[in-house]
Amino acid sequence: MIGKSVPRVDAYDKVTGRAKFTDDMAPHNCLVAKVYHARIGNGVVKSIDTSKAEALDGVVKVVTFKDVPNHCYPTPGHPWSVEPAHQDIADRNILTGRVRYYGDDIAAVVAEDEVTAQRALRLIEVEYEEYPVVTDPRKSMWGSKPPIHLDKKDNVLARTNYFIGNVEEGLKQSDTVIKRTYKTPIVQHCHIENPISYAYMENGRIIVVSSTQIPHIMRRVIGQALGIPWSKIRVIKPYIGGGFGNKQDVLYEPLNAFLTMQVGGRPVKLDVSREETFCNTRTRHSIEYELTAGVDKEGHLLAKDMLEISNQGAYASHGHAIAANGLTSFRLQYACPNIKGEAYTVYTNTPVGGAMRGYGIPQVCFAGECFMDDIAKEIGMDPLEFRKRNLIQGYYEDAYLKPIAAHTNGIFACLDKGAEYIQWDKKRKEYSNQTGNIRRGVGMALFSYKTGVWPISLEIAGARMVLNQDGSVGIMLGATEIGQGADTVFCQMAAEVLNMDMEDIHIQSVQDTDVTPFDTGAYASRQTFVTGTVVKECAEQLKKKILDYAKELMPEETRELSLDHGWIFAGEDHAISLERLAMESYYSLSNSSVLTAEVSSQVKKNTISTGCCFAEVEVDIKLGKIKILNIINVHDSGKLINPKLAEMQVHGGMSMGMGYGLSEQLLLDEKTGRPLNANLLDYKLMTIMDTPEIKADFVELEDPEGPFGNKALGEPPAIPVAPAIRNAVLHATGVAFNENPLTPQKLIDGFMKAGLI
Amino acid sequence: MIGKSVPRVDAYDKVTGRAKFTDDMAPHNCLVAKVYHARIGNGVVKSIDTSKAEALDGVVKVVTFKDVPNHCYPTPGHPWSVEPAHQDIADRNILTGRVRYYGDDIAAVVAEDEVTAQRALRLIEVEYEEYPVVTDPRKSMWGSKPPIHLDKKDNVLARTNYFIGNVEEGLKQSDTVIKRTYKTPIVQHCHIENPISYAYMENGRIIVVSSTQIPHIMRRVIGQALGIPWSKIRVIKPYIGGGFGNKQDVLYEPLNAFLTMQVGGRPVKLDVSREETFCNTRTRHSIEYELTAGVDKEGHLLAKDMLEISNQGAYASHGHAIAANGLTSFRLQYACPNIKGEAYTVYTNTPVGGAMRGYGIPQVCFAGECFMDDIAKEIGMDPLEFRKRNLIQGYYEDAYLKPIAAHTNGIFACLDKGAEYIQWDKKRKEYSNQTGNIRRGVGMALFSYKTGVWPISLEIAGARMVLNQDGSVGIMLGATEIGQGADTVFCQMAAEVLNMDMEDIHIQSVQDTDVTPFDTGAYASRQTFVTGTVVKECAEQLKKKILDYAKELMPEETRELSLDHGWIFAGEDHAISLERLAMESYYSLSNSSVLTAEVSSQVKKNTISTGCCFAEVEVDIKLGKIKILNIINVHDSGKLINPKLAEMQVHGGMSMGMGYGLSEQLLLDEKTGRPLNANLLDYKLMTIMDTPEIKADFVELEDPEGPFGNKALGEPPAIPVAPAIRNAVLHATGVAFNENPLTPQKLIDGFMKAGLI
Repeated sequence: MIGKSVPRVDAYDKVTGRAKFTDDMAPHNCLVAKVYHARIGNGVVKSIDTSKAEALDGVVKVVTFKDVPNHCYPTPGHPWSVEPAHQDIADRNILTGRVRYYGDDIAAVVAEDEVTAQRALRLIEVEYEEYPVVTDPRKSMWGSKPPIHLDKKDNVLARTNYFIGNVEEGLKQSDTVIKRTYKTPIVQHCHIENPISYAYMENGRIIVVSSTQIPHIMRRVIGQALGIPWSKIRVIKPYIGGGFGNKQDVLYEPLNAFLTMQVGGRPVKLDVSREETFCNTRTRHSIEYELTAGVDKEGHLLAKDMLEISNQGAYASHGHAIAANGLTSFRLQYACPNIKGEAYTVYTNTPVGGAMRGYGIPQVCFAGECFMDDIAKEIGMDPLEFRKRNLIQGYYEDAYLKPIAAHTNGIFACLDKGAEYIQWDKKRKEYSNQTGNIRRGVGMALFSYKTGVWPISLEIAGARMVLNQDGSVGIMLGATEIGQGADTVFCQMAAEVLNMDMEDIHIQSVQDTDVTPFDTGAYASRQTFVTGTVVKECAEQLKKKILDYAKELMPEETRELSLDHGWIFAGEDHAISLERLAMESYYSLSNSSVLTAEVSSQVKKNTISTGCCFAEVEVDIKLGKIKILNIINVHDSGKLINPKLAEMQVHGGMSMGMGYGLSEQLLLDEKTGRPLNANLLDYKLMTIMDTPEIKADFVELEDPEGPFGNKALGEPPAIPVAPAIRNAVLHATGVAFNENPLTPQKLIDGFMKAGLI
Repeated sequence: MIGKSVPRVDAYDKVTGRAKFTDDMAPHNCLVAKVYHARIGNGVVKSIDTSKAEALDGVVKVVTFKDVPNHCYPTPGHPWSVEPAHQDIADRNILTGRVRYYGDDIAAVVAEDEVTAQRALRLIEVEYEEYPVVTDPRKSMWGSKPPIHLDKKDNVLARTNYFIGNVEEGLKQSDTVIKRTYKTPIVQHCHIENPISYAYMENGRIIVVSSTQIPHIMRRVIGQALGIPWSKIRVIKPYIGGGFGNKQDVLYEPLNAFLTMQVGGRPVKLDVSREETFCNTRTRHSIEYELTAGVDKEGHLLAKDMLEISNQGAYASHGHAIAANGLTSFRLQYACPNIKGEAYTVYTNTPVGGAMRGYGIPQVCFAGECFMDDIAKEIGMDPLEFRKRNLIQGYYEDAYLKPIAAHTNGIFACLDKGAEYIQWDKKRKEYSNQTGNIRRGVGMALFSYKTGVWPISLEIAGARMVLNQDGSVGIMLGATEIGQGADTVFCQMAAEVLNMDMEDIHIQSVQDTDVTPFDTGAYASRQTFVTGTVVKECAEQLKKKILDYAKELMPEETRELSLDHGWIFAGEDHAISLERLAMESYYSLSNSSVLTAEVSSQVKKNTISTGCCFAEVEVDIKLGKIKILNIINVHDSGKLINPKLAEMQVHGGMSMGMGYGLSEQLLLDEKTGRPLNANLLDYKLMTIMDTPEIKADFVELEDPEGPFGNKALGEPPAIPVAPAIRNAVLHATGVAFNENPLTPQKLIDGFMKAGLI
């Protein structure tokens, strides 16, 4: 079953509208909650009057920051650690009177219906004391008065650095030294289903049904937020309409859980609007980079240096982990004897940066791969050739985190495929001396990406399997299907090990922390690798139990038994059907015992995926318009479990990468930090009308660490696209844009500066 | 925790209305299904016209017997067997054109709402060919034309018999030979929540949410009914508002599953009305008995003979198992060298008999214990003394089914307690020579009852436990809470083994065949005994895993470790808290593995419960009214897990028994078999106004077979009450009533015949 493009197990239900999402499951008598958001960007609430809202007919409850538990909790979807030093930063209250960004959560209304809840919000009266708003991390890192968080005088959430070799020496030995700065924008995940949850109480416990990537982590965070034992929380995750990392934070569920407690356990729904999703959930961090490199005459990198300043926004969320991930990535893949890295994550009065597909790597890849082209241009070398000269061939490992290693390394093969598709050599020449308004270019970028989070953080997964009466197998996992096809590939893995047909594998798609094995969830491109390892182990256990039971049923049989598509074979003969064996296991009067297997395992391994994007663009200089003529991603993600799903994954990631390169950007009012385009009309997400023909290709090396030779694929496709487009524009026009997205305004500005217009 | 009267784990939610039952969980966009019932008692549908119903606005689908799968399936909640000889009788179609009783299911309507569905029913036009209706099993057993089921020419569903010793010889040796006939009525369970389900489809599978005692069995039966693999069915059981055996049959769920398939998987709700519950679900069998016994001068039973004729109604349901259970019980408990038993279960054109609390024993106990009093009267002996002379003391076992044995036998102790409470000796004398209209009497009856169904049928149970992060434990069982307190006693068992507090045990009350361990469900008073055995085993496994993991965390510790209320002790010292251990098991970077345990075990054992009822009544002869002055049940059910819950269980059973003795009876029109009082106004269920002070007492012997010394208690309380009342009336008035319930009409008739009026 591995390597087969079987249809998604949830395809039919999803295209027919039968699949049940959180809102479909909410009881009809749900109360509706709405959040009152601050109308200033920085300050404190001096007074709040909710009496008019409370008096409104249909309002059940109004709570403010004064009513919520008076302790902080962390929101990010990390596994948690028993060691305080490794725990996430707890800087959130469920509601706050200290406004740290425009839209901060001050109060909430619970009403019989949504219209009443909205009306009640408008009746809440708040007086603020305002402080100056700081949106620029370069300013904020030197402190503000008062600091954004009291325990952080300089607003620097964290700073880390490393040294490999001696960069100063390396630069001295270099023939050319180049310095550049790059900057990436705030973007938003724009999953189709906004965050939504409903909560109610049962037997003194709180049940939260939520559109989340991380049900088991959410249980823990809600417990922390409310200050009650974690087992008193139960989180249920139905199908979800996308997450891309935004649902790897615990957003409004602690509030929702708190609200149901305030109304005697009645169900309360908290459906986050699109505008709130933009303003009040999470974004991709805007990060600035200062890059320095030295190269010798042959184009070998002798030294490189990166300063990374990440705009965290008002709360820690995943915090420095994202900048740190970029820092790690900076020392991988390209050979260089002297490397220095330094990263700052800085609080500002802006929307909160969190996890988003690629977790800091799209940013550092934009900077780093633009930089590679800029160096190549400086030394007059073909940028592909320049990369090849510096890329490590074959096995390599991280200098500090040894399990992070390229056990297989297909980057050269990827580059060959990409260059061939885009006709690199031909077109680099063909487009080298253009004039006129319409110019074409080809560009590329590459990346590497680790698979899961070991050894930076815990990797653990769980699986349980049951042999049903009809010989089919049920699977329960704590890992989550979030639209990426996880359920399908897990079924393929089980079918592979058990040598069964796909239709005989039934996966339980809803995760429920009360019953589903513990798994940290969907993030870090980990599930196919980490959970897959455990699915394999669990299926092997079940297979052994089946064959052991078959031996019990056939004590006279001496030949070796095997399992093959619904039959137990003894040697080459059909010995007993799996259905008959299963029926015996349930109903035999002499030796019935239902066959199940359960595994909970730590997975202490990692491996590195690579890949690249090649793009051909046509630039209309006067209109500031980029048209993508051809684009391809080539991925070295090990063995593909389901090539068709892998291709779809790449298509989606490339679409996200094109938006990142061309149009997406959350704009903020500089004075208040208020988002200016927090809706899908003004925020320019790629649509099918903007999207060219997308090509995805693969180099399938069998990775020894992957349970089925596989490695990360979930996030990588989004990473190399924006810099590839930018580099193609550089090729076409000779103008180096150092900030994405390449909007018409930015292009016109750049072309004017370069004298092209 | 064993033997403690802790509050029910679901108490608060149930009294506050927070607990979610099937109807609470149904989605708001559910379609509504209604069944078209036959308006004749026996015959065939000649033609059916649904065109007007289909044309009605809001009607989504109309199906008739012509549309359903053309094969039969069995409905009873038995575990199933891989051996055809042990399988239940398959004589049902989802809908039928061969009407076998008044109200048989011919067609069904699915509409947007209930009013439309009801209107559509009235637009269906049916023409019948009618056959004569036979409601009397004594007539039906000689056959009908055509037979009720074609493969049963004589309408006898089954006949079984046995011989122990030689009854003819025994009777010859006897000094007195007595013959009597007795008859019990059709009664109904009258659970407060009528049967209800809703069904929908997901990923090609059918999900049925149902108020059932037997979710795992229901999955199998729906699979059989639809002719599809059983794993394509998923049954979910929320809290249920009583079952008493009626929800141990699979009633309308196969139809509901079929209907959702007909409407593209949209959710369809099938809410059975109270009238339908009386007419179309299940009832307690009406059974007739012919009893013969011979005794010697000292009152020793030398021979006894029972002929039992059970009215099955139109479909097999649990069929002969109920009469056979009575037959088995007839040879137990009283010593008698010569016993003969013969039982017939006969199809008639009446509502279907099925499982109901006591499973044939309330009937045979009524006959047998009335008979004991009638014999005692005949030979002039005190009926209690007569019983004691014949009861077996200490251990005994069944002649044919060895594992059914009284490993502990507290019947004499029970009798002593009952006699003392009712002041037996004093009142038997005091009331011996009464005249006048108002007369008092004391009477009693006793019984024995096996615990679970082994070795007649399969006993298997499953449990899964998870150690939560906070050191609490989650439990998942396939066994069902049906209002009897099962969840609470299972939590107590786990708390006992794990030496934990009740609040640290969280039980998953909803059963879901996709995720909940396999267990056959709530019936046969089996769960505390059978499932309890497995709960104990599973808790012991989890405890071992916890202590093993503790050793891993403390390799230097050489003392023996033990678990005590949230602490791991090393010798007498607190070594590590269970919470810390649990946190390590989830989050340790070196050795995390979530601790779970799962057990699926066949339970090959049985034991016998006993008990008795003593009643004091006052009879108003001219009004035909019985007033219960005092009544007590004393039960020998082994060690009580929760004495308060046990007492409540007895109270409920005694209420049911009083209704059986005094007022309850489903009356049928003789010509059509149509129920005449199929509602709670005309069917005289006991209310709090009719109920005297009820006393429950226990004899707690530690049974070696019970996991915690416990044995059956669920059904027994309902068994001895009706004959105790009848025997008290006999004592008060000298008139022997041989049919329950003792309604005013029956009493007046009897007293007139006896010359008292």
